[in-house]
Amino acid sequence: MSGSTFTHFDKEGKAVMVDVSDKKETTRSATAMGRVLLQPETMKLIQEGGFKKGDVLSVARLAGIMGAKKTPELIPLCHPLMLTSVKVDFELHPDENAIDVIGTCKLTGQTGVEMEALTAVSVAALTIYDMCKAVDKGIQITDVRLVKKTGGKSGTYEAK
Amino acid sequence: MSGSTFTHFDKEGKAVMVDVSDKKETTRSATAMGRVLLQPETMKLIQEGGFKKGDVLSVARLAGIMGAKKTPELIPLCHPLMLTSVKVDFELHPDENAIDVIGTCKLTGQTGVEMEALTAVSVAALTIYDMCKAVDKGIQITDVRLVKKTGGKSGTYEAK
Amino acid sequence: MSGSTFTHFDKEGKAVMVDVSDKKETTRSATAMGRVLLQPETMKLIQEGGFKKGDVLSVARLAGIMGAKKTPELIPLCHPLMLTSVKVDFELHPDENAIDVIGTCKLTGQTGVEMEALTAVSVAALTIYDMCKAVDKGIQITDVRLVKKTGGKSGTYEAK
Amino acid sequence: MSGSTFTHFDKEGKAVMVDVSDKKETTRSATAMGRVLLQPETMKLIQEGGFKKGDVLSVARLAGIMGAKKTPELIPLCHPLMLTSVKVDFELHPDENAIDVIGTCKLTGQTGVEMEALTAVSVAALTIYDMCKAVDKGIQITDVRLVKKTGGKSGTYEAK
Amino acid sequence: MSGSTFTHFDKEGKAVMVDVSDKKETTRSATAMGRVLLQPETMKLIQEGGFKKGDVLSVARLAGIMGAKKTPELIPLCHPLMLTSVKVDFELHPDENAIDVIGTCKLTGQTGVEMEALTAVSVAALTIYDMCKAVDKGIQITDVRLVKKTGGKSGTYEAK
Amino acid sequence: MSGSTFTHFDKEGKAVMVDVSDKKETTRSATAMGRVLLQPETMKLIQEGGFKKGDVLSVARLAGIMGAKKTPELIPLCHPLMLTSVKVDFELHPDENAIDVIGTCKLTGQTGVEMEALTAVSVAALTIYDMCKAVDKGIQITDVRLVKKTGGKSGTYEAK
Repeated sequence: MSGSTFTHFDKEGKAVMVDVSDKKETTRSATAMGRVLLQPETMKLIQEGGFKKGDVLSVARLAGIMGAKKTPELIPLCHPLMLTSVKVDFELHPDENAIDVIGTCKLTGQTGVEMEALTAVSVAALTIYDMCKAVDKGIQITDVRLVKKTGGKSGTYEAK
Repeated sequence: MSGSTFTHFDKEGKAVMVDVSDKKETTRSATAMGRVLLQPETMKLIQEGGFKKGDVLSVARLAGIMGAKKTPELIPLCHPLMLTSVKVDFELHPDENAIDVIGTCKLTGQTGVEMEALTAVSVAALTIYDMCKAVDKGIQITDVRLVKKTGGKSGTYEAK
Repeated sequence: MSGSTFTHFDKEGKAVMVDVSDKKETTRSATAMGRVLLQPETMKLIQEGGFKKGDVLSVARLAGIMGAKKTPELIPLCHPLMLTSVKVDFELHPDENAIDVIGTCKLTGQTGVEMEALTAVSVAALTIYDMCKAVDKGIQITDVRLVKKTGGKSGTYEAK
Repeated sequence: MSGSTFTHFDKEGKAVMVDVSDKKETTRSATAMGRVLLQPETMKLIQEGGFKKGDVLSVARLAGIMGAKKTPELIPLCHPLMLTSVKVDFELHPDENAIDVIGTCKLTGQTGVEMEALTAVSVAALTIYDMCKAVDKGIQITDVRLVKKTGGKSGTYEAK
Repeated sequence: MSGSTFTHFDKEGKAVMVDVSDKKETTRSATAMGRVLLQPETMKLIQEGGFKKGDVLSVARLAGIMGAKKTPELIPLCHPLMLTSVKVDFELHPDENAIDVIGTCKLTGQTGVEMEALTAVSVAALTIYDMCKAVDKGIQITDVRLVKKTGGKSGTYEAK
Repeated sequence: MSGSTFTHFDKEGKAVMVDVSDKKETTRSATAMGRVLLQPETMKLIQEGGFKKGDVLSVARLAGIMGAKKTPELIPLCHPLMLTSVKVDFELHPDENAIDVIGTCKLTGQTGVEMEALTAVSVAALTIYDMCKAVDKGIQITDVRLVKKTGGKSGTYEAK
């Protein structure tokens, strides 16, 4: 716990876009992860798909990258940002019928990019869902979380 | 399993926005859920917050409703839709330090609204994350899934 | 007064996008107006401007038309709509140093287009402001209101 | 009057996004205001509403904050900006059946944020309109204007 | 020549979003094409790229599909539409160092989808440009045109 | 040829938004051109139109300027940018029944603005198309290309 009140509300409980005018510009990065749980048959289709049947993951990757750029439109109190790098990657765990989505964002600016990384992961995961939902109605998106964060006043954070 | 190939790719594996021109217009609805896991102190802050310290959930509710409208911009192969109803609600489970997010979308149209409901839930959950991240770095968004779906050729679906 | 509670909140006071699924599709139109108050010199510049110095009003007209299309992105609980017509016009009142902005929207649908007409007027007025602000810092946008509305259950409304 | 031609047109009267490449980055802020005129019963509903019946003003506040971020999409010749702070507040004047909307934006950049503050105010006011229009058809948005501006070459401006 | 005045201006020369309220809903489709001219080495890279080096065309395909959905935001007087199908495809002509981009859009509605098909083609072509510009500065996008159009009052049109 | 691999893919062929975090901020500009080919009668209508019948080119100019600002939403791997200047101009060649569209963008930043200039040109050309398509079905957009580029590591580039 690094505080005991919400920063996105003023003293009277009114929502604000936090004033970061006086924060220093530092290089910041954030990595988030999430997991998509599928049925074994869906998992197999995605793995085979790479080339012949259609590449689910490359569509999801692009959606995640473009989603990161939309963060300030989606999250009401997020600042507009100029991301200098967005990367979305996947790790397949066929034994667990799971795909891990990993998103990393960077910029030099006055505010962190956790929400951008988390949005990239969420949108990529939702896109996997969309592309597989006709063959698999029980898909779950789970464990969406911050994995690592560098830069800014609070320094480096790494999830245990 | 209701099929064995992806509908979002054609026979050569190329991504397409599925042609729904010949589908009948029916009334469709979809309900999705997700869960935000917080630290006990954060949970308490949100519960108290309602009025005095700032209402996290009413910000997240609006973000979810507005997010549902952005689905076709976020999910590459989703059709543009004219939602006739969007509802986002929350269930607090203080004993589990969890907030359940429930999103329901409706329309009369040629294609379902699962992705809209799932996007509403994801954006609302991300907004809770954003507003609490200064006090709680270990938040997780989990169990994002379809709960119920009515209308369309495949009829009613209910998750077990 | 046509009611005594807000339609955009449910019984517990939670914001919702009102469910219009069961409303009939009717042809609807709405006309809104607003007024921009300028300094006499600015008024003159705009009038002369038409061709030689740059046509403030044709830029504002386009901005208003495009703004109407953005209404569901701007007003949180507005439904996405398929406008079939948008018109933005101006009346110059040099004796009052005022420009009246008139916006009319139409569609066949389940919900009215007042907010679209009002948004068209507001965005057109803000654009006039933007283009004149370097020469006139005291501009005011005033009297933005609904003038007429047809279609829907409540029928025709005309402001007195 | 600080000039006698429009800066948004070139010498031949063609619209341009003014070249600010050579302007210095300074800290800039702008505060705008506007007023929403309601019927006495609507005013009462809003005041009571705060908690039980639904909080019109907190929805409008969020809409205003998100609207400020959309300014460069709405106003054709506005530059894209990275706002570092947005604040939207309300003052209730029950004796005048009026709600004043106050919007303040900040950034460090090459161009001012008046349009962002005015857009925040306009969108917040339109949202109040939207949420009350079912109970009050005669609402007016009025006196939208710049109140204060600091930073930039022209320095501090304060409306009389 | 099917007329002698512009439909997007009224009698006084003012831009309008043409009123299609009274047009019949018919099934409409449009196919557009365009060509990207590259250097021979770039052409080779794209052809090899498919799998190992990165698939330029599948990125461009998605961009084109998503671009079609953005048409009413890009083209000022276009109506908002609910596309029921978007398809973007490519034909490689290595002997001419050219890639043909073909875009097809469909909907049932009151207005045609030519602009959507042309926008899909343009955005896909621009995306090929973007991905190849580091290795090839002389790329050209050329011959962007309507190829076929069905539905609507004017019936089927086919380019010679 | 300034390289032999695509910068928008990593070593495994996965699409990335290129990391420009370590690039220096320099002043950059880019000019792009394109050509719209029309029938002689359409050309005449546009030339006459300027004032009386509606000014096609001033609508297209605005669309191009606003389109430049949308580049990062349209081109999947483009960085979000803060353009400091956008200019769109036209040259009429009645003898060739052609309109040349010229777009110039500027900023101080870590990445170039070619795609912004090319998008401005494409959107302006598509808008001319849209406004003339009712009277001329054979319009073509052609020769969209980069003309000049300054700033950045690779320095000035000028098309032959």
